[in-house]
Amino acid sequence: MIDQHCHSVVAGEVDDDAFAALLTESDRPPAPGTTPWDSALGLAVRRWCPPALGLPAHTAPADYLARRRELGAAAATRTLLRAAGLTTLLVDTGLTEAAGHPLLPLADLGSAAGAATGEVVRLEWVAEQAARGAVSAAGWLATVGDALRSAAGRAVAVKSVLAYRYGLAVPPEPPTDAEVLRAAGEWLRGPRTRLADPVLERHLLWSALDLGLPIQLHTGFGDPDLRLGQADPALLVDFVRAAEPSGVPIVLLHCYPYHRQAAWLAQAFPQVYVDVGLTLSYTGPRAAAVLGEVLELAPFGKVLFSTDAYGLPELYLVGAAQYRHALAALLGEWQRDGACTAADAERLAGLVSVGNARRLYGC
Amino acid sequence: MIDQHCHSVVAGEVDDDAFAALLTESDRPPAPGTTPWDSALGLAVRRWCPPALGLPAHTAPADYLARRRELGAAAATRTLLRAAGLTTLLVDTGLTEAAGHPLLPLADLGSAAGAATGEVVRLEWVAEQAARGAVSAAGWLATVGDALRSAAGRAVAVKSVLAYRYGLAVPPEPPTDAEVLRAAGEWLRGPRTRLADPVLERHLLWSALDLGLPIQLHTGFGDPDLRLGQADPALLVDFVRAAEPSGVPIVLLHCYPYHRQAAWLAQAFPQVYVDVGLTLSYTGPRAAAVLGEVLELAPFGKVLFSTDAYGLPELYLVGAAQYRHALAALLGEWQRDGACTAADAERLAGLVSVGNARRLYGC
Amino acid sequence: MIDQHCHSVVAGEVDDDAFAALLTESDRPPAPGTTPWDSALGLAVRRWCPPALGLPAHTAPADYLARRRELGAAAATRTLLRAAGLTTLLVDTGLTEAAGHPLLPLADLGSAAGAATGEVVRLEWVAEQAARGAVSAAGWLATVGDALRSAAGRAVAVKSVLAYRYGLAVPPEPPTDAEVLRAAGEWLRGPRTRLADPVLERHLLWSALDLGLPIQLHTGFGDPDLRLGQADPALLVDFVRAAEPSGVPIVLLHCYPYHRQAAWLAQAFPQVYVDVGLTLSYTGPRAAAVLGEVLELAPFGKVLFSTDAYGLPELYLVGAAQYRHALAALLGEWQRDGACTAADAERLAGLVSVGNARRLYGC
Repeated sequence: MIDQHCHSVVAGEVDDDAFAALLTESDRPPAPGTTPWDSALGLAVRRWCPPALGLPAHTAPADYLARRRELGAAAATRTLLRAAGLTTLLVDTGLTEAAGHPLLPLADLGSAAGAATGEVVRLEWVAEQAARGAVSAAGWLATVGDALRSAAGRAVAVKSVLAYRYGLAVPPEPPTDAEVLRAAGEWLRGPRTRLADPVLERHLLWSALDLGLPIQLHTGFGDPDLRLGQADPALLVDFVRAAEPSGVPIVLLHCYPYHRQAAWLAQAFPQVYVDVGLTLSYTGPRAAAVLGEVLELAPFGKVLFSTDAYGLPELYLVGAAQYRHALAALLGEWQRDGACTAADAERLAGLVSVGNARRLYGC
Repeated sequence: MIDQHCHSVVAGEVDDDAFAALLTESDRPPAPGTTPWDSALGLAVRRWCPPALGLPAHTAPADYLARRRELGAAAATRTLLRAAGLTTLLVDTGLTEAAGHPLLPLADLGSAAGAATGEVVRLEWVAEQAARGAVSAAGWLATVGDALRSAAGRAVAVKSVLAYRYGLAVPPEPPTDAEVLRAAGEWLRGPRTRLADPVLERHLLWSALDLGLPIQLHTGFGDPDLRLGQADPALLVDFVRAAEPSGVPIVLLHCYPYHRQAAWLAQAFPQVYVDVGLTLSYTGPRAAAVLGEVLELAPFGKVLFSTDAYGLPELYLVGAAQYRHALAALLGEWQRDGACTAADAERLAGLVSVGNARRLYGC
Repeated sequence: MIDQHCHSVVAGEVDDDAFAALLTESDRPPAPGTTPWDSALGLAVRRWCPPALGLPAHTAPADYLARRRELGAAAATRTLLRAAGLTTLLVDTGLTEAAGHPLLPLADLGSAAGAATGEVVRLEWVAEQAARGAVSAAGWLATVGDALRSAAGRAVAVKSVLAYRYGLAVPPEPPTDAEVLRAAGEWLRGPRTRLADPVLERHLLWSALDLGLPIQLHTGFGDPDLRLGQADPALLVDFVRAAEPSGVPIVLLHCYPYHRQAAWLAQAFPQVYVDVGLTLSYTGPRAAAVLGEVLELAPFGKVLFSTDAYGLPELYLVGAAQYRHALAALLGEWQRDGACTAADAERLAGLVSVGNARRLYGC
């Protein structure tokens, strides 16, 4: 199975609170009297992970965490990653820490997982890194361009978090050089920490279209920094239409709860693909129903598996196991209902698990 | 069963690519390495159609298409249409070709299907036809008015594709005569190919309210020409309120993925109805779940069956068979759960399949 | 079970039309040839209520209504309320009649139900009451402030119907005193019947944050007075962020069909909670699926049971019975699937039915 969008994991020990903090999209402490373990994702972690560490499924959090410490973070990480059974990881390298802990470098992650790796370069990260030493707008833009071309030489895809920064309803046209220069100058006069200007975001997107690599876009739910309504992928339709002549694939990540809208885009536009990562992990026991909703309109040749795991190796295992289980449940139901044959089901599973990603990324 | 919204079918042979092109809402070629057959709708066609042509369910596309050619398009069309088991077809006559092939005239469609037919007149088509020889705004508007009154004499309903042209969030009030004249003059100075002006769209809607026939409105998903977010029927609420005193029924077509919003409108406003056509065909194995979502808020006396078949006679059979299957599955589940009796289920099915359309269209 | 949001019921006899009128969110007469009984809610009433009055489940409406009259409204009300098995009712006292009939006073409702009661004070009601004798903007605002502080002394929560009045997309900041005075003056010059001014609505919300009681907000579907799209709780995100430092709990009521958006808010923000009342009653046979959708992202410690019953005691019984049945069906499915243990299911049920409300309201 090819995990077409994921992040690295914490190398060292994490305490119980940090572990729990990585089981929610919230970056806030839990409400008094509540715990992130009491959630669909919490149930999924307790279902799939304890058996990989030699405990019964549904072991209580405290016992699971004790066992994890007993094994040591490094051994547990390796065991959990390998239990996910992934052959290739396409890793967004734009995040370097989780809950205050550093993440494993790409090579170490691949070696721990026993999987090949590919890099997904985050556009905003490239631009923000390039701003560190920039002395002029023109200089910064040139550095960004060089960095993107260099990234394109080693990466399999680029990614944008436009949904977090401005929202997906950007004007679809490329900005003019003058507009970009002006916006760059303005941004450089600020603290240079977080690129959210819509002109600069559009400049990055159109630069990415020139690179020709598939563009992964965060859409749908995420952390509290998001305005959910502005992450509805239906808002992208004008950009999708404007970008269509380039032929560059656009991969809509996560999408939930707007996954039906994303599936329509994937049916309507040849270059649009949809991903089910994050969504199937987080919705836990409900993953089969949600996956079914994606497959209502999305052509089977346009749907991509991923885990969107981040921070915890558990999220690799949960993402992979929950996806396999949900897909098997859904396709089993379809077959019992007479909606498709076993061969059809196998073909669909092969496309979403491996075939579509191989065709798209050449990996 | 009364099919309350459909289109005619291609009379002659279609090649494999044209056939596949009619299995998707996209008008683009499929992405490299993908085919529209790999979809929920593709599975549904393979489930329901081969048996009608003497092949096993789930026959591979190539074998099915070979068999179809062997029988000849005319015989296959007749067989598939009759297998749908429809007694009355209410046909949108505003489309005259599909994938470059001409569609059967209304009388021939009815005779091939062994069904009565009624006409649904597309408002924008009437207005665009009337523009061909128009020399003045006032003259054109008079011709449109005459054409609509004449259509009302023979049609059972009118239809608007406002969702494609401007989006559903039109100002609710009727435009003034002066506004209409000005907008008409401006539009006639253009290429006269596609009416999308919001003032003219509103003029058509309010003219339709005067006619008194039920108004069918495209809402929800469709081809890439659409901005999906602007086709959310919830956006119609102000127009629905403004039109309420007329008592003219407003039928929300398709609705997906905003069918729950449409169902709320049908519950809140006496003159609003919801249709399940297109949606149940396209969502294939998931149709029972989607139908269930419609019935969460929509009163059972306000829901209407249709196929929205277009181009391929297969889409009539799929639309009817998938609806029957989904409804039986859903109501069977409700009965096993103790939620209703067999008599309740039969009553609900009778309303949605026949009774509501008969009451609404007098057919 | 704690019913965290409900309304009182009609004390006297209601005729058949008034009864039917209370089975729909519409305040209009039903469309010709239709009845609100033909709906998911209608089926649920016929499932759960006849047995409480000594009739078989699924008794026809006319027979049920005859039996109800035979028993007398007072006895039937008492029987139905007690059959709901609720220990505590948190009652919105901002509505005093239903379908033209007066509602039972709070104490009488509690005594009929055999339940403790708590009051939920409706902000707009307080402000509108205070306007009756107001002679100046400043005087009115002072009276509103006094009334709110006094309400806070006896109530367990406040409630806003902002969604109906302006929509949820209010600017997040508190208005300035000058803005509030100006808006108050303008509103007092009008008929003083319905407070909808966004500045005054924001003033009420920020006053409520000062009181410190949990704030219940209507979100999602409701009567025809609503613009559904403006009741999407995702629109609240900026207000939620602005109100976060206060720590005051915000409870999103109903939420449907935007309950997945609400669940995300509950996961992302510590002070946000989601309610399932109204929604599980109205969606009847589909309640388990809808509840499942809420639990996809909402932490189990943030979900609250309620009935949102209004007018008919039947709606208390339906709300409670449908919730219990849906929850048992959903959790039974999860256990059969291996997603959780019986102990996990029991813990989840305990939180949503009782524990979360007890923690939140101290009742």
